[in-house]
Amino acid sequence: MKKLIAAASLVILSTAIARAQTIEITPNASAPSALGDAKLFSGHVVVASLFPANEFTHGTGGHVTFAPGARTAWHTHPAGQMLIVTSGKGWVQQEGGEKREINSGDVVWIPVGVNHWHGATNKTGMGHIAISYMKEGKNVEWGKLVTDEEFVGQVPPRD
Amino acid sequence: MKKLIAAASLVILSTAIARAQTIEITPNASAPSALGDAKLFSGHVVVASLFPANEFTHGTGGHVTFAPGARTAWHTHPAGQMLIVTSGKGWVQQEGGEKREINSGDVVWIPVGVNHWHGATNKTGMGHIAISYMKEGKNVEWGKLVTDEEFVGQVPPRD
Repeated sequence: MKKLIAAASLVILSTAIARAQTIEITPNASAPSALGDAKLFSGHVVVASLFPANEFTHGTGGHVTFAPGARTAWHTHPAGQMLIVTSGKGWVQQEGGEKREINSGDVVWIPVGVNHWHGATNKTGMGHIAISYMKEGKNVEWGKLVTDEEFVGQVPPRD
Repeated sequence: MKKLIAAASLVILSTAIARAQTIEITPNASAPSALGDAKLFSGHVVVASLFPANEFTHGTGGHVTFAPGARTAWHTHPAGQMLIVTSGKGWVQQEGGEKREINSGDVVWIPVGVNHWHGATNKTGMGHIAISYMKEGKNVEWGKLVTDEEFVGQVPPRD
């Protein structure tokens, strides 16, 4: 019986190793995209999963698209977040700071624990890849929705 | 003297904290792009830096574009690599395996230590974001260039 278990374990282990050593291709949009939860996002937002967190990535990857006027709620990341803007023009703002413009190709680093929101502008859509790093199984702490006054109330500085 | 050092340390520490707690926007193409080194790439390749490795990202981020026929040399990653295909159509192949087609929107995971190459097809260009994870200060081990026979010699299976 012990031998059988040992043999079975060996098969499982070999399969795991073989699997781990094969290049994995996840086809475009192979997982269904989800509409952004109205408790966490304002307006029309689509969230597409790209890759899960593992011991190497340390964070989840997703592609998020915001229609004009759409944005996240206020939130923080326990291990930070990297945004790579893939289309359009958007805004990002941290609590107590000015609203800042972000454009296709920009890369945005949200440090650990910084309360902020990001999204489209009031007139343009915006898409970004978001890599949200994990700490103790969590990659985000959600707060209140961004009000219309907070969203459009402040004119961003022209660079 | 000790007090001065302590005060100076406090200033440095405060600056570091203040800096670490501010959202950082790296504008599109703010670092010059580089042509792929002819010892590491075949054909016309452009490498643009996106973000550096740090304690959160654990890897460097870059955007790489391959002209038709262009590809990396054979190589391995000591902590793996994630590719997000952003444009066109390309090929990826691991040693001993078949050449596989990758298209815009696909996500490719290259496991630790797997010898492989990736690039355009012979007729189409391809672009991808590459996140190359770090181990002991390294994120890649380069090998030989991919020969023309290796590149076009094998017809990829039709999915």
